[in-house]
Amino acid sequence: MTAPVFDRMAIIGIGLIGSSLARAVRAEGLARSIVCSDANPEHAARAKALGIVDEATTDPAEAAAGADLVMLCVPIGAYGSVAATIAPALKPGAILTDVGSVKQAVIEAVTPHLPEGVHFVPGHPLAGTEKSGPDSGFAALFPGRWCILTPLPGTDDTATRTVADLWRACGMTVERLEPDHHDRVLAITSHLPHLIAYTIVGTATDLEDHLRHEVIKYSASGFRDFTRIAGSDPTMWRDVFLNNREAVLDCLQRFTEDLTALQRAIRRGEGDVLFDLFTRTRAIRKGVQDARQA
Amino acid sequence: MTAPVFDRMAIIGIGLIGSSLARAVRAEGLARSIVCSDANPEHAARAKALGIVDEATTDPAEAAAGADLVMLCVPIGAYGSVAATIAPALKPGAILTDVGSVKQAVIEAVTPHLPEGVHFVPGHPLAGTEKSGPDSGFAALFPGRWCILTPLPGTDDTATRTVADLWRACGMTVERLEPDHHDRVLAITSHLPHLIAYTIVGTATDLEDHLRHEVIKYSASGFRDFTRIAGSDPTMWRDVFLNNREAVLDCLQRFTEDLTALQRAIRRGEGDVLFDLFTRTRAIRKGVQDARQA
Ligand SMILES: NC(=O)c1ccc[n+]([C@@H]2O[C@H](COP(=O)([O-])OP(=O)(O)OC[C@H]3O[C@@H](n4cnc5c(N)ncnc54)[C@H](OP(=O)(O)O)[C@@H]3O)[C@@H](O)[C@H]2O)c1
Ligand SMILES: NC(=O)c1ccc[n+]([C@@H]2O[C@H](COP(=O)([O-])OP(=O)(O)OC[C@H]3O[C@@H](n4cnc5c(N)ncnc54)[C@H](OP(=O)(O)O)[C@@H]3O)[C@@H](O)[C@H]2O)c1
Repeated sequence: MTAPVFDRMAIIGIGLIGSSLARAVRAEGLARSIVCSDANPEHAARAKALGIVDEATTDPAEAAAGADLVMLCVPIGAYGSVAATIAPALKPGAILTDVGSVKQAVIEAVTPHLPEGVHFVPGHPLAGTEKSGPDSGFAALFPGRWCILTPLPGTDDTATRTVADLWRACGMTVERLEPDHHDRVLAITSHLPHLIAYTIVGTATDLEDHLRHEVIKYSASGFRDFTRIAGSDPTMWRDVFLNNREAVLDCLQRFTEDLTALQRAIRRGEGDVLFDLFTRTRAIRKGVQDARQA
Repeated sequence: MTAPVFDRMAIIGIGLIGSSLARAVRAEGLARSIVCSDANPEHAARAKALGIVDEATTDPAEAAAGADLVMLCVPIGAYGSVAATIAPALKPGAILTDVGSVKQAVIEAVTPHLPEGVHFVPGHPLAGTEKSGPDSGFAALFPGRWCILTPLPGTDDTATRTVADLWRACGMTVERLEPDHHDRVLAITSHLPHLIAYTIVGTATDLEDHLRHEVIKYSASGFRDFTRIAGSDPTMWRDVFLNNREAVLDCLQRFTEDLTALQRAIRRGEGDVLFDLFTRTRAIRKGVQDARQA
């Protein structure tokens, strides 16, 4: 691999992921100039003040103009309008890529606006935290984690390789998946866990006052892990669920059936049903530990 | 507080919690002699070999005989038979206490066997890991965590204070709760999160092979936290669910209703319902962080 060096890299949306990328690109010297745009003027100004970008604007078309690589890092619900806005400004031969947590919906939102001669390479770095905004980013977010690219049948292979090299230069291991396969895998590894964590923490907020007080006080026994996940950005996650609806509803359906079976086993005092499941899940845990990335 | 010093402390069940306590008691010099028993002869022998106890046996009555403090650290399902076995060996004035994750069922299992003149102080240190057995224990498990005691109306107050002092000497902060209140709080902070984690990891084990392979590979995006919880001891957790049935089923019912409402919102594309919940849960997260123990 040769680390790519871009003349002008545009990052649209300079929040957690966008600002982490800006920092990594700076640290590795992957762009001669980094420009960003953000609909939130405070975030744009903050990115400039932090020195992680060379130029910052609230106009995505201005940022994208003349860039050889444009990275979309906005919430998924904003993709369609951002793509429509930047399309006329994209230069021929430019690479348009993204970090969105869902891939099929992103492809549907972006491709109708794609100008002739611009290469679109959908991507998703599997790295994040429950924080948001430009101050929460950090270059060390990426090393040792996976990045999944979901190029389309017509995508220029050189463009795909350039995006792969960019993420590799940030420390990631890059894999390719079909967009619908990506969305099904992420529905269970990430979207369902978030939905469940939001739900259980929501259930706790509705408890009688004194009980809620103690739930917070004694949260260390398992609940606290869920509150961390359920502290994630509301806009980002609303957009994920609205845009990966079918896959999320499908695994939610399976999960609910399994939970109902356990509920029944508890009600009927069927200890062996519980014991068998709890033994099976230990094996998956072992698989996850063995597969653990550095 | 004066740290208590026991002549002979008996630990029945020398697994994760029992062996952690033995180590802490040794480190703090809280007993002149520590004896343990474990139904598993390998665990008893291992505890002796590790030097964390002075005597080890497979006979709980032998360990309990002559002890001034007896700590039950076996799975909750074993409480009744252990209590029956040790009852004749307990010396008058001895304190019988425990670490069980459920309190009402423990009280129901133990009290019928309690000899005259023995003080029973039910307790629960809120500290644990997903590991089990004597090798996985460590004294640093307890400092900075809560321990809940649930003494009964007739419990001798001096005995309760002695047990509280023991846990304080191990570094814990001690609180008192009613047994049924303890069980309801723990159902939501600990038992329901474990049940949900077991379920989602179980759902993943039933996926088609290629999907399961990728779920394990890309587990870092949220799922991995659940696999850690779902790797917990099957016997211990089976016993928790069977013995805290009503409280677990009650909060499971609330959780399922809330999840169904979210499922409906996703299906109907009601982004504002999702956004509102996700914003409310951030507030709970903040409460949990503020309440965080050292
Ligand atoms: N967080 C993760 O764990 C994670 C992981 C992998 C991928 N992703 C993906 O990364 C993307 C960004 O997520 P993030 O976590 O970085 O969120 P974030 O920290 O909230 O950053 C998003 C930024 O975009 C701004 N923005 C919102 N709408 C915009 C628009 N129409 N045009 C331009 N800027 C706009 C936001 O401003 P305001 O804050 O004022 O709205 C914010 O500054 C999402 O597509 C998400 O799916 C996230
Ligand atoms: N783990 C936690 O996070 C946690 C936290 C707080 C409280 N607790 C409570 O602590 C207690 C022990 O849990 P643990 O995590 O320490 O489990 P553990 O590591 O499995 O230890 C339990 C020990 O008791 C042995 N045992 C099983 N049945 C027995 C019997 N009838 N008589 C004597 N010994 C027997 C086990 O042997 P085998 O392994 O051969 O069965 C094992 O050595 C449980 O009541 C649990 O509710 C656990």
